[in-house]
Amino acid sequence: MTYSTLDYQIQDHILTLTLNRPEQMNAFTVTMANELIDAFNRASEDDEVRAIVVTGAGKAFCAGMDLKAEGNVFGLNESLQPGLEDMERLDDPEILHGLRDTGGRVTLAIFECKKPVIAAINGAAVGIGITMTLAMDIRLASDKARIGFVFNRIGIVPEACSSWFLPRVVGLSQALEWTYSAEVFDAEEAKKGGLVKAIVPADQLLEEAYRIARKLAKKSPLAIALTRQMLYRNAAEPHPLAAHKIDSLAVFYASQKDGKEGISAFLEKRDANFSSSASKDMPAFYEDWIKRYS
Amino acid sequence: MTYSTLDYQIQDHILTLTLNRPEQMNAFTVTMANELIDAFNRASEDDEVRAIVVTGAGKAFCAGMDLKAEGNVFGLNESLQPGLEDMERLDDPEILHGLRDTGGRVTLAIFECKKPVIAAINGAAVGIGITMTLAMDIRLASDKARIGFVFNRIGIVPEACSSWFLPRVVGLSQALEWTYSAEVFDAEEAKKGGLVKAIVPADQLLEEAYRIARKLAKKSPLAIALTRQMLYRNAAEPHPLAAHKIDSLAVFYASQKDGKEGISAFLEKRDANFSSSASKDMPAFYEDWIKRYS
Amino acid sequence: MTYSTLDYQIQDHILTLTLNRPEQMNAFTVTMANELIDAFNRASEDDEVRAIVVTGAGKAFCAGMDLKAEGNVFGLNESLQPGLEDMERLDDPEILHGLRDTGGRVTLAIFECKKPVIAAINGAAVGIGITMTLAMDIRLASDKARIGFVFNRIGIVPEACSSWFLPRVVGLSQALEWTYSAEVFDAEEAKKGGLVKAIVPADQLLEEAYRIARKLAKKSPLAIALTRQMLYRNAAEPHPLAAHKIDSLAVFYASQKDGKEGISAFLEKRDANFSSSASKDMPAFYEDWIKRYS
Repeated sequence: MTYSTLDYQIQDHILTLTLNRPEQMNAFTVTMANELIDAFNRASEDDEVRAIVVTGAGKAFCAGMDLKAEGNVFGLNESLQPGLEDMERLDDPEILHGLRDTGGRVTLAIFECKKPVIAAINGAAVGIGITMTLAMDIRLASDKARIGFVFNRIGIVPEACSSWFLPRVVGLSQALEWTYSAEVFDAEEAKKGGLVKAIVPADQLLEEAYRIARKLAKKSPLAIALTRQMLYRNAAEPHPLAAHKIDSLAVFYASQKDGKEGISAFLEKRDANFSSSASKDMPAFYEDWIKRYS
Repeated sequence: MTYSTLDYQIQDHILTLTLNRPEQMNAFTVTMANELIDAFNRASEDDEVRAIVVTGAGKAFCAGMDLKAEGNVFGLNESLQPGLEDMERLDDPEILHGLRDTGGRVTLAIFECKKPVIAAINGAAVGIGITMTLAMDIRLASDKARIGFVFNRIGIVPEACSSWFLPRVVGLSQALEWTYSAEVFDAEEAKKGGLVKAIVPADQLLEEAYRIARKLAKKSPLAIALTRQMLYRNAAEPHPLAAHKIDSLAVFYASQKDGKEGISAFLEKRDANFSSSASKDMPAFYEDWIKRYS
Repeated sequence: MTYSTLDYQIQDHILTLTLNRPEQMNAFTVTMANELIDAFNRASEDDEVRAIVVTGAGKAFCAGMDLKAEGNVFGLNESLQPGLEDMERLDDPEILHGLRDTGGRVTLAIFECKKPVIAAINGAAVGIGITMTLAMDIRLASDKARIGFVFNRIGIVPEACSSWFLPRVVGLSQALEWTYSAEVFDAEEAKKGGLVKAIVPADQLLEEAYRIARKLAKKSPLAIALTRQMLYRNAAEPHPLAAHKIDSLAVFYASQKDGKEGISAFLEKRDANFSSSASKDMPAFYEDWIKRYS
């Protein structure tokens, strides 16, 4: 499939998803949002893909919303969005239903994805450029990365479900500080605050992302898909019993699938050769579970 | 307004709220609790106030509950509190309704506040003296700060909703360790454990608090108020969809208010001049949202 | 009481619970699970026990599930577990009800325990060997500790409610990284990632665990029991009001029990002598509260 704002390349079971508007510093548009959603949904169901690396073409990762593009998500283009007169009826079901934050549609698609996602933040990542990475599992920063939750600077608020993700990644206090101040900071501060796993020299960033991705791509696709959803979803539940119910089904189910090969390989001291499919082998409880809050 | 236990001073849109019983190390009383609640409610609706700095008069920040004051919140004064005979009927609706932890009434008022709050912990902060700061957004400690979650030492339990706030700020393990041990520790340990953002020499503490407060006071009052409630509330929800629903309304609403000025200023490379009012401009969904769990 | 897989010794109000299959590196079996549940339930109600230290006999803490034992919890022994034919009916209520993750039964018993629990991780702690410690309050690692969330390596998924506990202890990103990669790491990485409080030379590990346990054993048994449940449960609720309701009852109740002695001792500058019983003195609201989500 061909996208106009993305490059989508699979090699050795690793999808490299490149934000590809380098002349505009990969600034985010509604088209890019829709293509990202399509790409993550597609990769989620494509058994050829076992891990995803997201990066930016050229010098930037993503310079945030393209404020000059048409139909941008802040509703400034009144032909595509409710206008000022709708401000009086924000509780109108029609508005409530039809008005959906574009960044959030993207992070929810990443949240639902069955494959592990690594962000290789190669340069500027501001606004949606950084909030989209909060739904990715592992963030690496180039030493050239410049990061900012800049929303409050331009009179708007953090979006893309970042108020849900950011405190879970960096704690409540750091999340408040970065979103209030809305300042742009460097990779060092991102590492210190717990936002990125590591700082990597710019010319080794993708190599390091692939090194991690290759390890994940060797694991059981079924086990990785279940693990991903379990960690995001169970951790947010108000009682561990919610986790126990899923665990009881998931660990038993997995033990009857790739677990048999995994334990044999372990006992025989050889590499396991997992054959499960994330598109075909999800257990019966999976669909009900992931739709619990929809 | 004049308070008997607090000093309330506004300058350059920054409210300095000083716990003001220096002879008693600013020990907490029911009067102080009621005055704090009044002060935070008032500041929340006063458009002159865009950021709040809380500190203590004299050497201490707040030495905890004033155990010698009348009518203190632990119910030891039996003329003001249910007596021992009520122990048998703690599940009586009358008791359940009437018996409210005084510290928690204060932290819930801070939690509801529309303005960012910076704690400048200038000295001893023990018991309610430290748990009240957990509902504040940014904590700075003087190098003379002495902090203790001392409840277990005197046979009682952490209060003021600290069992909700503390693990969100410092993680579950550190929260358990500090509340179990009930020991008093210094600014260094507070910083290492993630409780305070920075340690500042005592004579520069307020200056540093004001430096941060001035930056926040320049932001959009509407955007700051929404950001504050979004980070505290959305992060605690069991699914990111709860954040997405608020985001979709909040980012669009803000974009039509201060967002227009914010984006114009950004494109014109000038400072923004935000005109929203946190008292008058909150969106229609706000009231329903913040009362969801009441 | 005598256990076949555990050593259970009480001295000076501290229970030392030793995983005791040293020839099998204390590998976990269904018998060990049932004995652990019994031991934690028993210690929870035994007023002689005021703190619990868990460690392993010999070189290992716990090398994970005993893959060679009969009736192991992954359901590979088809005489004790539903077989492959049941894969088609995982949503069958009979299966759903009867199939319970063994590790989760253990961590839920630890979660319910009224006594503080310190894990002294003396060596290898992999699989259930490390996930069981996530429900313990303070983790100390010997410099010889080797830790791994190895589930994904053998084609299965993290269990024992670890998807609930681990992100609360180390944050979401670190939890994803360790469970995805499934690698074994050393005490240094465990400390850096926030999994253990401290690294202690192997020959001083128990001594350090007892030093902490002795401090906790001097506190009010009632206050400690309430504090433990408040921190685990209230922190996971979607709004601080849930904590406020419990606080209001718990702080008042405790103030009328050990709080009287605690405050007298504090005012008289002497050590407190607490007399409450965790088995007899829990408040009336306790049972309803801890069963809220069952």
